Amino acid sequence: MKLSPLFTDLYQLTMMCAYLDNNKREWAAFELFVRELPEKRNYLVYAGLQEIVDLIESLRFSKEDIDYLYSLKLFPDWFLDFLKEYRFSGLLYSMKEGTLFFQHEPVLRVEAPIYEAQLLETAIMNQIHASSLIATKAARVFSVSKGKLLADFSLRRTHGIDAGLKVARNSYIAGFNSTSNVLAGKIYKIPVVGTVAHSFITCFDSEEEAFRAYAKTFPHNTVLLVDTYDTIEGVKKAIKVAKELESKGYKLKGIRLDSGDIVELSRISRRLLDEAGLNHVKIIVSGGLDEYKIDEILKEGAIVDGFGVGTRVGTSADVPYIDFVYKLVEFDKKPVMKTSKGKKMYPGRKQVFRQKNGDVVGSFDEKLPGEPLLEKIIENGNLVKELPSLNEIRDYFIYQFNKFPERIKNIHRKEEYPVTISQKLENLYETLMKKLLSGG
Amino acid sequence: MKLSPLFTDLYQLTMMCAYLDNNKREWAAFELFVRELPEKRNYLVYAGLQEIVDLIESLRFSKEDIDYLYSLKLFPDWFLDFLKEYRFSGLLYSMKEGTLFFQHEPVLRVEAPIYEAQLLETAIMNQIHASSLIATKAARVFSVSKGKLLADFSLRRTHGIDAGLKVARNSYIAGFNSTSNVLAGKIYKIPVVGTVAHSFITCFDSEEEAFRAYAKTFPHNTVLLVDTYDTIEGVKKAIKVAKELESKGYKLKGIRLDSGDIVELSRISRRLLDEAGLNHVKIIVSGGLDEYKIDEILKEGAIVDGFGVGTRVGTSADVPYIDFVYKLVEFDKKPVMKTSKGKKMYPGRKQVFRQKNGDVVGSFDEKLPGEPLLEKIIENGNLVKELPSLNEIRDYFIYQFNKFPERIKNIHRKEEYPVTISQKLENLYETLMKKLLSGG
Repeated sequence: MKLSPLFTDLYQLTMMCAYLDNNKREWAAFELFVRELPEKRNYLVYAGLQEIVDLIESLRFSKEDIDYLYSLKLFPDWFLDFLKEYRFSGLLYSMKEGTLFFQHEPVLRVEAPIYEAQLLETAIMNQIHASSLIATKAARVFSVSKGKLLADFSLRRTHGIDAGLKVARNSYIAGFNSTSNVLAGKIYKIPVVGTVAHSFITCFDSEEEAFRAYAKTFPHNTVLLVDTYDTIEGVKKAIKVAKELESKGYKLKGIRLDSGDIVELSRISRRLLDEAGLNHVKIIVSGGLDEYKIDEILKEGAIVDGFGVGTRVGTSADVPYIDFVYKLVEFDKKPVMKTSKGKKMYPGRKQVFRQKNGDVVGSFDEKLPGEPLLEKIIENGNLVKELPSLNEIRDYFIYQFNKFPERIKNIHRKEEYPVTISQKLENLYETLMKKLLSGG
Repeated sequence: MKLSPLFTDLYQLTMMCAYLDNNKREWAAFELFVRELPEKRNYLVYAGLQEIVDLIESLRFSKEDIDYLYSLKLFPDWFLDFLKEYRFSGLLYSMKEGTLFFQHEPVLRVEAPIYEAQLLETAIMNQIHASSLIATKAARVFSVSKGKLLADFSLRRTHGIDAGLKVARNSYIAGFNSTSNVLAGKIYKIPVVGTVAHSFITCFDSEEEAFRAYAKTFPHNTVLLVDTYDTIEGVKKAIKVAKELESKGYKLKGIRLDSGDIVELSRISRRLLDEAGLNHVKIIVSGGLDEYKIDEILKEGAIVDGFGVGTRVGTSADVPYIDFVYKLVEFDKKPVMKTSKGKKMYPGRKQVFRQKNGDVVGSFDEKLPGEPLLEKIIENGNLVKELPSLNEIRDYFIYQFNKFPERIKNIHRKEEYPVTISQKLENLYETLMKKLLSGG
């Protein structure tokens, strides 16, 4: 979705104006990170960079925007004239989308004159937060789903349009295979899937007639919902319709179970389908699923080919927000930090080094072992690195996710991934802390 | 935000196609409601109708939409030709936005040929859910805030763009006074407000200099953030700058406290300000606020003029989703229902009657005492009722909210508002239930 430059908190604009009015044009660096992981998360998955790059590249205040700001009777005319011509002139560093990250690791850094770096804060926080929240939740589902197909079915309960699109995109990044969201399919080229609803079944004189009607229209693409009345009877009718399809040269794609004892029903359904020679018919399960429920039914022996995952993943219901912060770390070439009780942060521009058995957060100019995760994306306001396609992001996520220890993928238990701070950065922190405490 | 007709689950389109292909064009009625209230909610606030009306009025499949659907190799050509010309032809009934509602009360009904009523399901559920979720959460904040000013500061943590706009709009409906979201201010004409950030303060050589710089640029509109270093010292510097402003004929608008012991700090700040003759300077509090926290600090004696409310309200963090359902209640002029274990619903088209001491849910054609809450909004696809402005919706919310008993506004305790089912509707339910159980 296209971001307006007015998609911001008012104070970003008033501060921008006050910086300029007071001739504050020093270069500044802001970093986006979390101080600690949420209690129910052992890792986070970074996503949302594409939107930020699109925002920065297209950042223009339109005549309507300026007219609206003028109507507030708040800003001086010279500032509105300045905004008319405003373009971002700074640098953006970022991790790759799909990267796992941990506490104290900057995922993104903006370097620009202070008033420019400040202006971007709200949009960056909103967009990276919304995307990473869902990529993280979806990764947890992926981690317990044992290679089963995963479809995003959450659209009816996401927090609006953009959230619906972001859930489709970012669950796909984190290993999902498809979405029911047609608009997301169009925009992101994600495979779209669907079955039928209970209301469809009840509109026909019988379940069998409903099955036959749907199969007639989509002989190549039918997944029948079998639990409207009696699930096992529903499976038997689906088998009957599958046989009719077979006689016309088509194959039933699947059945969907949406209620009841999924473990038992899936096992009986599989047996009935196999006995009828319908080994190719997939069993799809939906209804109140999340990583906890999927883990449970798979461990109890459900025989399932795929899951349609909805509300709880689409709203990240157990952790509905993450405390990202966007903090000034350097001002006029000097490292800075703001620390208050219980809120530690490290000063200065940083780099994250991914080593074999853990991460090291160092200063940006350190050369430490491991893969540096932050890359330059935008310079002088222009893109200097080609961004990967959605499928490349998804491949990258899966590749690195597989390399992480199973231990931290545990969805029930808090497990710490080793993140250490480089000696240089610790020294810088100590030096600054002393200076702050002495009031310097 | 403009809704695309592709903002839907794929199965809505495949079912539409299958209905038409099987010549299923019977008139149907679907109602949107919740079976039970979430554990932590004693009432819900209905919102989001405007978006649905806008969607229905502008519902057109563009050439790009059709091209995309064609690319899926799923739909027959006749169906895509049908979509090109498709317009909604049915009826929409709805409660007024801002109405409090309870379990089993339809807030909205679509009556149309089955394939049309089905098509709207996803967008209706998504949009009404996202808006009502936030209106409800914000109403709880409003209910404990004792007339203090309430500003929406949540934009950085809402689930994307649309969510950010919906939080601003629907918290305003539910009694908030303003938002920090500039785009929402532009679109909805909601008052926009803001203060300054810690980063602004730290960019200057001293806190006092930062205060003076901001006040210089916005002499009419300055709210100073006083907790960057030592809060009480910050207040004293704010008083100094306020006096300087006064000498130039301006008044400092307020100070903001964002951390620490708010009860104590607010009382000391008020005393210091009053002693300096600055009774007009408002104290604004922010930082991790929600209805629980606001209730607590007000009960403990905080002296506050307004609250900046963020993340927990903008994500409805304690109840991040509501189980709305959109159910077929009538098909081909006959009442229907789908009931499964623990999931009761009532058949047929309904009306909700708001009586003095409780609500009665009856059949649509009953004339019962009390105010009928569902009104006809769209007929033959056209708007037949002028929708209220945002301020009218807000006034309506506040007017009726004040009439509800204090008991159900308790944010800590589950309290039931009396909702009864009319005798006629109970009889209809019993009759249909017997028929279903006898397999008829």
